[in-house]
Amino acid sequence: MNRNLSAALIVIGNEILSGRTQDLNIKFLGGELGKIGIFLNEVRIIADNENKIIKTVQELKDRHNYVFTTGGIGPTHDDITSLSVAKAFGAELELHEPSAKKMREHYGSNLNEARLKMAHIPSGASPIETKITSAPGFKIENVFVLAGVPMIAKAMFDALLPELSVGPPIISRYIEALLGEGDIANQLEKIQNKFPDTDIGSYPFFRKGEIGLSVVAKGTNPEKINNIIYEVEKIIKSKNRKYKIDDDVI
Amino acid sequence: MNRNLSAALIVIGNEILSGRTQDLNIKFLGGELGKIGIFLNEVRIIADNENKIIKTVQELKDRHNYVFTTGGIGPTHDDITSLSVAKAFGAELELHEPSAKKMREHYGSNLNEARLKMAHIPSGASPIETKITSAPGFKIENVFVLAGVPMIAKAMFDALLPELSVGPPIISRYIEALLGEGDIANQLEKIQNKFPDTDIGSYPFFRKGEIGLSVVAKGTNPEKINNIIYEVEKIIKSKNRKYKIDDDVI
Repeated sequence: MNRNLSAALIVIGNEILSGRTQDLNIKFLGGELGKIGIFLNEVRIIADNENKIIKTVQELKDRHNYVFTTGGIGPTHDDITSLSVAKAFGAELELHEPSAKKMREHYGSNLNEARLKMAHIPSGASPIETKITSAPGFKIENVFVLAGVPMIAKAMFDALLPELSVGPPIISRYIEALLGEGDIANQLEKIQNKFPDTDIGSYPFFRKGEIGLSVVAKGTNPEKINNIIYEVEKIIKSKNRKYKIDDDVI
Repeated sequence: MNRNLSAALIVIGNEILSGRTQDLNIKFLGGELGKIGIFLNEVRIIADNENKIIKTVQELKDRHNYVFTTGGIGPTHDDITSLSVAKAFGAELELHEPSAKKMREHYGSNLNEARLKMAHIPSGASPIETKITSAPGFKIENVFVLAGVPMIAKAMFDALLPELSVGPPIISRYIEALLGEGDIANQLEKIQNKFPDTDIGSYPFFRKGEIGLSVVAKGTNPEKINNIIYEVEKIIKSKNRKYKIDDDVI
């Protein structure tokens, strides 16, 4: 059996927990990692709190191949991710001179101490540089520290992508029909038991007042996925329902 | 100092981790809990995995006043939340007869074993019933188990609301201006130090190609919040920028 790589994401930000801001990075990272065969296995959303960040990084870095963090690397007093991650590794923050140089060029006389904070990364870390901002993210051991703003998080992820090991890609197909989950739950369970190493998910939806379901088969073996979808198709056909089959777009 | 109540949320679902589905319940619950003085202090997103659910519930229930879960209480094989939460408390799943009765009325001859699974709650739990579905959520000790579909999660939250203790409401106001975070980071830090028990957050935004920031003051003391916003207003005025002040709508 193919072994997939495992990742965790730590979302750092009071604004996500308070309901002020809708997180968009979880969906993005979960989908992008899956494409290269890395399973996002858990997500923690935590406050801008130094001890909490340190403990969470230390706990998760030993448990997963990769840990990503988003948020808290800006210039203000509540941006404490870089310092906290440095402390999690017993490292000091150091000025990254090439980033400082870019900032000097970009900000000119508006470059101040607060902005220069963003050019500091832990000793031993390597910067994650993008074209859309002079302030870098960074990688320290297996931990990747990204910005919280989705556009910047995405650019940083694209920049670090070549550094990730690639597992067998996770493939996902779905079949959907206007049918209640309970109508085929029993048969679905039998199919799942027949294909124990391929994940079958069943998700209800509501459209224009009608109830439907999507059955999603997800794994690394395309043949098994097609067989699962084919077996579900037979059930739905036997109930004379219209249906649709497609690759799962994430 | 007022002590606020603390909550955690466990989002259960492979579809959130894989990037298939955008979670909407975190933002909803974080905002609603804040209104009644309960801080959402951490969120865990985990897979549909029995051991993981059991361990996470056991860890968080002792650490927070309330724990909420969303997802995994439907009729299919991948809906294992109810059984896993029961096991976390050493309880058995039992048929909740009033919910079964509602289901019999609703489904008639389409009621099958899979659907009846949804009328089972742990021994000692109390059901969370809504008008939009016959399948209940439930409360066991300080853990509230809700559906994952946002519309149903919302109805269940409304139904359980009277059971929650209420803390001093968390109030939040913001001031926004077309100004870089780095331009006022230093002054913001001084204001934060002057009001240590009120949370000041600074969040950049990008609109029509322009960079701006929102400074959010959040806490339980309206006077301190107004003083903070007033001090930030003075700084922005001194820089001759337009600005806007409002209650933070969550």
